[in-house]
Amino acid sequence: MGAIFQLAGIIAGALGIIFTVFLTFRVLERDPGNEKMKKISEAIQIGAKAFLISEYKILYIIVIAFSLFLGFSNSWEMAVAFIFGATLSVLSGFFGMNIATKANTRTAQSATKSLSKALKVAFNGGAVMGMTVASLGLFGLGVVFFLTNGNTVVMSGYAMGASFVALFARVGGGIFTKAADVGADLVGKTEANIPEDDPRNPATIADNVGDNVGDVAGMGADLYESYVGSIYSASALGALTFSAKGAVFPFLIASFGIISAIIGILFVNLKVKENDSIDPSKMLHGGTYIANIMELIAVFILSKVILGSYKAAIVITLGMVVGILIGGITEYYTAKKPVIKLAKTATSGSAPLLINGMALGMESTAIPVILISIATIVSFNILGLFGIALAAVGMLATLGITLAIDAYGPIADNAGGIAEMAGLDPEVRKRTDKLDSVGNTTAAIGKGFAIGSATLTALALFSTYIQVANVSIVDLNDSNVFVGALIGAMLPFLFSSLAMKAVGDSANIMVIEVRRQFKEIPGLMDGKAEPDYAKCVEIATKGALKKMTLPSLLAVLSPVIIYFLLGKVAVAGTLAGTTVAGVMLAIFMSNAGGAWDNAKKYIETGEFGGKGSMSHKASVIGDTVGDPFKDTAGPAINILIKLMSIVSIVIIPILIKFFE
Amino acid sequence: MGAIFQLAGIIAGALGIIFTVFLTFRVLERDPGNEKMKKISEAIQIGAKAFLISEYKILYIIVIAFSLFLGFSNSWEMAVAFIFGATLSVLSGFFGMNIATKANTRTAQSATKSLSKALKVAFNGGAVMGMTVASLGLFGLGVVFFLTNGNTVVMSGYAMGASFVALFARVGGGIFTKAADVGADLVGKTEANIPEDDPRNPATIADNVGDNVGDVAGMGADLYESYVGSIYSASALGALTFSAKGAVFPFLIASFGIISAIIGILFVNLKVKENDSIDPSKMLHGGTYIANIMELIAVFILSKVILGSYKAAIVITLGMVVGILIGGITEYYTAKKPVIKLAKTATSGSAPLLINGMALGMESTAIPVILISIATIVSFNILGLFGIALAAVGMLATLGITLAIDAYGPIADNAGGIAEMAGLDPEVRKRTDKLDSVGNTTAAIGKGFAIGSATLTALALFSTYIQVANVSIVDLNDSNVFVGALIGAMLPFLFSSLAMKAVGDSANIMVIEVRRQFKEIPGLMDGKAEPDYAKCVEIATKGALKKMTLPSLLAVLSPVIIYFLLGKVAVAGTLAGTTVAGVMLAIFMSNAGGAWDNAKKYIETGEFGGKGSMSHKASVIGDTVGDPFKDTAGPAINILIKLMSIVSIVIIPILIKFFE
Repeated sequence: MGAIFQLAGIIAGALGIIFTVFLTFRVLERDPGNEKMKKISEAIQIGAKAFLISEYKILYIIVIAFSLFLGFSNSWEMAVAFIFGATLSVLSGFFGMNIATKANTRTAQSATKSLSKALKVAFNGGAVMGMTVASLGLFGLGVVFFLTNGNTVVMSGYAMGASFVALFARVGGGIFTKAADVGADLVGKTEANIPEDDPRNPATIADNVGDNVGDVAGMGADLYESYVGSIYSASALGALTFSAKGAVFPFLIASFGIISAIIGILFVNLKVKENDSIDPSKMLHGGTYIANIMELIAVFILSKVILGSYKAAIVITLGMVVGILIGGITEYYTAKKPVIKLAKTATSGSAPLLINGMALGMESTAIPVILISIATIVSFNILGLFGIALAAVGMLATLGITLAIDAYGPIADNAGGIAEMAGLDPEVRKRTDKLDSVGNTTAAIGKGFAIGSATLTALALFSTYIQVANVSIVDLNDSNVFVGALIGAMLPFLFSSLAMKAVGDSANIMVIEVRRQFKEIPGLMDGKAEPDYAKCVEIATKGALKKMTLPSLLAVLSPVIIYFLLGKVAVAGTLAGTTVAGVMLAIFMSNAGGAWDNAKKYIETGEFGGKGSMSHKASVIGDTVGDPFKDTAGPAINILIKLMSIVSIVIIPILIKFFE
Repeated sequence: MGAIFQLAGIIAGALGIIFTVFLTFRVLERDPGNEKMKKISEAIQIGAKAFLISEYKILYIIVIAFSLFLGFSNSWEMAVAFIFGATLSVLSGFFGMNIATKANTRTAQSATKSLSKALKVAFNGGAVMGMTVASLGLFGLGVVFFLTNGNTVVMSGYAMGASFVALFARVGGGIFTKAADVGADLVGKTEANIPEDDPRNPATIADNVGDNVGDVAGMGADLYESYVGSIYSASALGALTFSAKGAVFPFLIASFGIISAIIGILFVNLKVKENDSIDPSKMLHGGTYIANIMELIAVFILSKVILGSYKAAIVITLGMVVGILIGGITEYYTAKKPVIKLAKTATSGSAPLLINGMALGMESTAIPVILISIATIVSFNILGLFGIALAAVGMLATLGITLAIDAYGPIADNAGGIAEMAGLDPEVRKRTDKLDSVGNTTAAIGKGFAIGSATLTALALFSTYIQVANVSIVDLNDSNVFVGALIGAMLPFLFSSLAMKAVGDSANIMVIEVRRQFKEIPGLMDGKAEPDYAKCVEIATKGALKKMTLPSLLAVLSPVIIYFLLGKVAVAGTLAGTTVAGVMLAIFMSNAGGAWDNAKKYIETGEFGGKGSMSHKASVIGDTVGDPFKDTAGPAINILIKLMSIVSIVIIPILIKFFE
């Protein structure tokens, strides 16, 4: 292999970073709006940064402790790779979110001019996030690959660093965002009868901070983990099948993915014309299609030239298509006909709405699972375990633009909030609402995509574990394996339970604080006095940090405990059990939550009684129940699945070394 | 083996049947009360019978068609055994439920005398159900065993007959009972503001019918299936380990179980003294303990004498203890401290109550799974696959009394309803309420027990499938097996979705009908005119029968489709996936539903605002959401798991014969 191939990840990553800097300037050069807007935006930025810094402090204690363990028990290269992987994830989350929180006020201000201007700013803000995650992820893994000459053990350390951050970002961020949201809604909307994002609501800044730390930084870390995990496992399994060529191939695919994403992002920027009649959804999807087509051309050439046949290209295409289809299915269940049918059940009350929403979420597991099954079997039959890992890489290759579209949503949402709080012209709010409604759909698609890619990545990591732990057969007929699977299937339920209770407990404290401020701060309701926003941010932060430890421990310790009690083969059973049950639970919760959210929005457009009607009240209950489903527990299960796999890959071989 | 051993099942079964006849007379000799009571009881009987007959008609079309398939493709002995197994289940369900519907009015009438008299009638009514199920189940399987000299293939036909009936009884009965219940509550309690069981509510008879067809006949068929399935698989696996001795051993254990159950039932009858200050819960549990102790003594002797060591006894004891512990855990989560904490969240509204209830249900999966895991591993290490099957037999050996206590609940509940409708002295209602509140707890324990035994039975059936399909290794590292597990894990979600939507749809039609009757029947609300009860029964019947087909097909066809697409090893993967995910979903749904139900009841005792408060309203929503969870989807998943296993055991070998 030529040195250029070995360096592909580093070069493409660096290119991506340069492009990100360019995008950042494009965003920052925009007018951030008037003083009031700047003040609000700053409050969100300060809150979000404060949360992330507190979160990272705790994270780094664990990361450093763990890296010492890795260093002493295994190798210091691995320990350094671990810290490196975690740090790049932290940096990308921090930087991406920082720009997102600066893009929101600029989007609002641009919306005073035109829809297209606002769209560009919001999209480029999201693109900074997407490109940062993909570029830094690939760059870092590329550096490790180059320096260690493709040492898979050291690379697994890097992947585990990514997983640790993802866990904290998703669980902590998920608890923060929903505690703030539920707290703001329960008192503000329901009790005090003031609208969403009203500046008099003390929890409103916390709510906006939550959108950023949960939906932007959390989602970014989640996909960073999937992206790194899939490339790592494809490289490890590729080395077994095609030696050096196979090891480097996934890096090449990902490198061209970065370039394709850049082209897609530029396309959106050029295509958006200066007028108000554009269709934001079309523009965004257009960019994704361009990027994917570019990538596919590269994939077919690379596959033939490097691996000598189109086999790899077929598998990668399959992964990409399945990713897009799962996104589409998610959109169908959370934004199309089923939602209208669901909204109708709200006319009979909240109980029928809740029952039917759960039925919808459960039903929605079927097609994605069948799609993933097809991708798995076809990939396996074409290229063995390497095929499965490559399908995952294919799904994630153009992450730069996929995540851009996903992160665009919260920016548009925040922009609307700022427009509301700053009292801008209602026309502005209309424009941001239009952007936001597209954002809700892209967010739903993004969640489906995150679950789909997590599943394929988990499958690839499962196969990698089998290899590194030297397990030849995982026989379900062995009672230890079956019991492992049984316990593994239980973990996502226990994990979700902890996450949901964390939201409930933190929201409760938030409710009490918001009520207190309404009562004790004179003139607050008349808009004459300002609420204490910072206090609410602090409550959400403390709650999230306190409550994220237990579920995190569960994810990290389970494979270790199973190893000591039942052995390394049973660990594989546990991973399988967690994956199969976790995927269903994650899809169920995400889609039920998404459908309730959109059912409420549909009713708010005036259907089935509209705002203030009985069915609207029922739909608000559905939405509130769905919040921790779709934004805390559901997405966190993705991490649980991947983290348990990577923890097993890294730690079990070390334990085997010492105890067997 | 002596002939007496071969005949043990037949003899004990016959003994049980004789005892059941004796019990039946004890129930029927009681005073059924005044004309009004008799009329209400008759209406419930007619409705319940009408439903079962319609259900059985559809069932028999499928049973006969399927038996023809078995006869032509395999053997006519198997076809006959299949019909025989189905018919005995139908008979026990029909007979047991018939006596239960006669016991209800007699319980109400006895309650005019004393609590103890009422307790005896209700318990003996339940005991008829319990003993019928256990006796007929064992008798029939014993006959097949004796006539075919322990031919496991023919026995599997019998077990599958039991499974088919269980499916229809659980799914159909579950849809019926909740459509009626939700329909009655939504219009009656919420809209018309009349109390539960008010005779003016047109759906009230349907509601009481539902208790019988769902909780009595459905639960009976469910446990009949587990009972037969566990004895069958233990016999099949025992033959492999200990040849003839091993094959007959499970029958001996079950035979002494029948005798122990009889002793336990007699104990309760003798122990209940004629006064009002008895503690019904103590009496009932006392009977179970006596029965289990008797059984354990027999088990230890049999184990040593027949199999030459105490190994089997230890395994059976473990199964029994785990069964009791799972019942206890279920009681803890659905009737103790966690419920009070849950009820408190209702003070913040229905959304927190719903979120926390789901978190509770998810958390409650952990300990039962760990207990089952311990039982599985210890049993396997002591006696291999035979050990797992024996643990399941141990859990179910004293089914006669376990199910008696379970079926007692709906009888007490119905008695309360009749007392209310017939306008008896409030003192009577107080007594039946006392019986009913114990019934709620025993029902919760029964559900936990049903899931626990279904899981162990499913594990035993899984092992049996491996044997009969000649699968040596079920390797999760084979992508077909992993995909099988993934699809298998999805099925309980899809199945639950179908069941819950069926309830929603049927309940909707019921709501419209009840509203119509309130509006169109003059004088109904003043108690001057009678509602059209039969119409509501008919709606629930039609809804249940129409909607039970699709989920049933899903259970039967899935293993067959997987076999054709992915092969016989992948079928094993599918069974494992369905089992591990299904168990979690079943426990989650059952316990969340049970906890919401009891949280509502707790608030109705005056806590957290009591009846009519905001928290009460929230708790009614929780209860309504929980109804299809705990009484339709949750329990039906048990059947899905077992039926898929038995279908695989019976059909896949036939398909292998033809296609491989």
